Amino acid sequence: MQKVLQDLINKNRKWTQNGNLADYIPELENVDPSILGISIFGLNGELYTAGDYQYKFTLQSITKVITLMVALMENGVDEVFQYVGMEPTGDPFNSIVKLETIKPSKPLNPMINAGAIATVSLIEGTAEERFFKIIDLIRKMTGNDRISYNDKVYQSENATGDLNRALAYYMKNYGIIKGNIEEHLEVYFKQSSIEVTSMDVAKIGAVMANDGKLISSNEQLIPAGIVRIAKTFMITCGMYNASGEFALKVGIPAKSGVGGGILALAPKQFGIGVIGPALDDKGNSIGGVKLLEELSRERQLTIF
Amino acid sequence: MQKVLQDLINKNRKWTQNGNLADYIPELENVDPSILGISIFGLNGELYTAGDYQYKFTLQSITKVITLMVALMENGVDEVFQYVGMEPTGDPFNSIVKLETIKPSKPLNPMINAGAIATVSLIEGTAEERFFKIIDLIRKMTGNDRISYNDKVYQSENATGDLNRALAYYMKNYGIIKGNIEEHLEVYFKQSSIEVTSMDVAKIGAVMANDGKLISSNEQLIPAGIVRIAKTFMITCGMYNASGEFALKVGIPAKSGVGGGILALAPKQFGIGVIGPALDDKGNSIGGVKLLEELSRERQLTIF
Amino acid sequence: MQKVLQDLINKNRKWTQNGNLADYIPELENVDPSILGISIFGLNGELYTAGDYQYKFTLQSITKVITLMVALMENGVDEVFQYVGMEPTGDPFNSIVKLETIKPSKPLNPMINAGAIATVSLIEGTAEERFFKIIDLIRKMTGNDRISYNDKVYQSENATGDLNRALAYYMKNYGIIKGNIEEHLEVYFKQSSIEVTSMDVAKIGAVMANDGKLISSNEQLIPAGIVRIAKTFMITCGMYNASGEFALKVGIPAKSGVGGGILALAPKQFGIGVIGPALDDKGNSIGGVKLLEELSRERQLTIF
Amino acid sequence: MQKVLQDLINKNRKWTQNGNLADYIPELENVDPSILGISIFGLNGELYTAGDYQYKFTLQSITKVITLMVALMENGVDEVFQYVGMEPTGDPFNSIVKLETIKPSKPLNPMINAGAIATVSLIEGTAEERFFKIIDLIRKMTGNDRISYNDKVYQSENATGDLNRALAYYMKNYGIIKGNIEEHLEVYFKQSSIEVTSMDVAKIGAVMANDGKLISSNEQLIPAGIVRIAKTFMITCGMYNASGEFALKVGIPAKSGVGGGILALAPKQFGIGVIGPALDDKGNSIGGVKLLEELSRERQLTIF
Repeated sequence: MQKVLQDLINKNRKWTQNGNLADYIPELENVDPSILGISIFGLNGELYTAGDYQYKFTLQSITKVITLMVALMENGVDEVFQYVGMEPTGDPFNSIVKLETIKPSKPLNPMINAGAIATVSLIEGTAEERFFKIIDLIRKMTGNDRISYNDKVYQSENATGDLNRALAYYMKNYGIIKGNIEEHLEVYFKQSSIEVTSMDVAKIGAVMANDGKLISSNEQLIPAGIVRIAKTFMITCGMYNASGEFALKVGIPAKSGVGGGILALAPKQFGIGVIGPALDDKGNSIGGVKLLEELSRERQLTIF
Repeated sequence: MQKVLQDLINKNRKWTQNGNLADYIPELENVDPSILGISIFGLNGELYTAGDYQYKFTLQSITKVITLMVALMENGVDEVFQYVGMEPTGDPFNSIVKLETIKPSKPLNPMINAGAIATVSLIEGTAEERFFKIIDLIRKMTGNDRISYNDKVYQSENATGDLNRALAYYMKNYGIIKGNIEEHLEVYFKQSSIEVTSMDVAKIGAVMANDGKLISSNEQLIPAGIVRIAKTFMITCGMYNASGEFALKVGIPAKSGVGGGILALAPKQFGIGVIGPALDDKGNSIGGVKLLEELSRERQLTIF
Repeated sequence: MQKVLQDLINKNRKWTQNGNLADYIPELENVDPSILGISIFGLNGELYTAGDYQYKFTLQSITKVITLMVALMENGVDEVFQYVGMEPTGDPFNSIVKLETIKPSKPLNPMINAGAIATVSLIEGTAEERFFKIIDLIRKMTGNDRISYNDKVYQSENATGDLNRALAYYMKNYGIIKGNIEEHLEVYFKQSSIEVTSMDVAKIGAVMANDGKLISSNEQLIPAGIVRIAKTFMITCGMYNASGEFALKVGIPAKSGVGGGILALAPKQFGIGVIGPALDDKGNSIGGVKLLEELSRERQLTIF
Repeated sequence: MQKVLQDLINKNRKWTQNGNLADYIPELENVDPSILGISIFGLNGELYTAGDYQYKFTLQSITKVITLMVALMENGVDEVFQYVGMEPTGDPFNSIVKLETIKPSKPLNPMINAGAIATVSLIEGTAEERFFKIIDLIRKMTGNDRISYNDKVYQSENATGDLNRALAYYMKNYGIIKGNIEEHLEVYFKQSSIEVTSMDVAKIGAVMANDGKLISSNEQLIPAGIVRIAKTFMITCGMYNASGEFALKVGIPAKSGVGGGILALAPKQFGIGVIGPALDDKGNSIGGVKLLEELSRERQLTIF
């Protein structure tokens, strides 16, 4: 496997030249675009890595998967889906249009910004406590206690996050979100800014591939039913407006972030962490998607 | 004229039964829906009144006309229309959709909420100074120094104004609005809460009918070119999504507010102030529109 | 006046270089873009011309004004506005979106394509008879019996008019249009292809400036109330998505077509015909608009 | 299994009372709403049935899956996806909005009407030949040569299908569809009107569950890669605007039609055919969905 991954990195690094770095905050722009790395963590505990697998990046939208699981564990399925929908959308991840044109103004799913903000709002506690619940789950899934958030990225996101503010206030107006918007956004921006390597992400994927049980101890960290919900959303809406194409071409649960990371997994087999900050026009890691496409084809990973 | 107005009130009060009070803040809901009043103030200084002409109400969207004129006097035409458009819209006054679907995210015109918030943001000074510029112009146009804003209404608007917050942050994200959003909204909500009677409104209309000159002194309070711009917007976008119908059936510059007021004018003749808090489904005073329709037909006021 | 017009042509022909020819049918593309001409026809019967005033062009959207008046004369105001709205729109003239998002699927006004097709569908008779009613009114307004339609343009429009077909079938699905769609479109495309010079258009404008009475005989060809409705739509929606700007900067009733023509008028004074096939990005004659802007400023034509 | 199915029918028939019959053509309205039936066809050749499994109904949108496979076999994957997208949509199945707001005007996926019409247009031949290709594949998949289309339903669809006409002409305008629209629609309406029982549908599902191989002969009727594409679309967009919810709650590839049918399958296990003409507000068989939900839970069929 080690050699397979090394070959995949070598063959696919060229694609990074066709991508662009996220430009909406300076921290994401000042990055070497040719970075490409992958880690795979098997349910048997084996770790395979290649390329820039040690490169540190912020999770960005990838955390939406974790936050959804935290909210579901805390509130139950019925409560959460009163405030956020279950349906994929053909609109951009930061779109506000459907909040006006579909009533009630419930965001279509928890993988778009509006839906993730609504999900964050359902977690109880002070901003600090709420953020801790999210990062704590990530630390447990990865077994990595040193995981923290990147304050510079957080400050940047907070300073430039007026589109997310607009989404939040719009939903507040229609009762989808309650409470203090700035507090919700603090949690939302901080969880986006959690910093990891591809190895951490592979470990997150492995716990999900293991139906919520820790690899080391087999302890059921997250109920299997909740992991299943998260995996389903990863299939139907995990890769922004290229989720359908990814399902056809790769066919495994995956969630990308504009930091260039991708969380993916082969059920019952292994978790995958990918990093490649050069993005395609949909906002997904351009090299990362190519790499996963080839890996899936070679190993026949598709669930379809 | 006095008798004409009295007859109009008598004949049209029945329509108020078919309308509904604005329900988005409690202060607008707790009102007698059968109220209907009119004042006409001629360029010769004569005042005619009928019905509940002394009833006090908040200007709401009517102030958008005044605020536009303040911003134009302060910044000039070119500067203002860099940030707000000149075109009517088929969308609701509080719609956010076009800010996403048309780029740049410039509000279509200064008579919809997004456009008025952008206009407010262009007036310089502290929130207090900016609000003073607006109310000061109203006091000068009416010759009524006691005009103030209704604090209870203002507090209510501020507390429930999250849709306007969403519009403001959305525009801030795209650089249409700069500076502190809460400060802009303070000015916006306060100017909406300015409290007047139909007589005050008639006097505002009279100054506009007089091309910006005060009736008493003939002093040019507002440049004629700026008044002309305001009157044009009143024709094309003054009556929410019934502006086209109003232009066809009444044909005079007019601006309504959800408080039930209508500012209208017959150029070179007189200003008109109407109050009737029962609204039709477009948000215009149901009795007020009927009354103006009849008045225009009888007096052949249409400019078309 | 003759000299004024000549100066206006000389000064504004340069703008034509910044425009583009309509490209959706080849017939409109194979034209000299530097063409610019104007005719003014006074209510006293005097005709002033300058530039390429004799250049022949197809009316395109300008006919929508005539067709509306034919439909109103035949069906009455109430009947027509059951099927087409009275409101300006912020959407493009060929947009289909609002037919889906606003119910009932009634086109917003008779100056956009959907609205004009609905208007055409209300005129009774065979396709031939219906087209004759429209061209007959134009012949009477201009006193020019030789006016006909350009068959090559008609064939082209018919062959490439699938967007209009889509609009028509969409409205048929919701009962806004009844009967045979291809027949309606035959009338619609033929009326768009009626060929005139700026002098003809000026004469149409003169009859409208004269409240529907022929200049020669003072005969009331069109009821004044119907002319008023048409003029109002010209103000609120006559210049595509620049109608608001045109109202502010020029301030007279006008209707443009992608053939480069503009029908305009100064009420009680004269009709104006302009031709300049180079269009701005909204679809209006770029030189024509500049010319009218200057003419209106100099002669203070604005109705506001 | 027989008993399981019988119990499921008994327990879930009550839900049919909460649904409504499709009302857009009379033929779908004149049906007993309490009908509910299911067939399961195993890869081992065993057939289980319960309830109104012999009831005949038209496939409606279910055929979209077959038509997609015909077009893919004939044109190849790359060619087909040049004209139709791969992405789920949050808009209704018959929506036209995205064709205008997203450029190029490519329908988002082949499971919505616009996408299916575009797919039909890619199949070569006369209308008769093209329809034959589709029904022939269905006959082979089911081993049922007597399958035909319901002419009354076809005539009805054709007569009232103006919304689909609008979609087709809109796409033709932008070059997504070429050729004769009425011919494309003939094929489209006929394939929707193909009449089957739940047993036929179960057999279609079985071939798909068997990766494209016939159950009887193991002959590879459809390439496995093409079946995989079809199954993926069934997961992401098979159940109208409830596809996401169905993926979460049932988790198997499925496609519904407004005739009340559902085609579903458990990969490597069996095909499922369901009929229940009472629909929920998304257009899916209300009893059928409940039944599949329970079946999936009991047998742990979810692929996630």
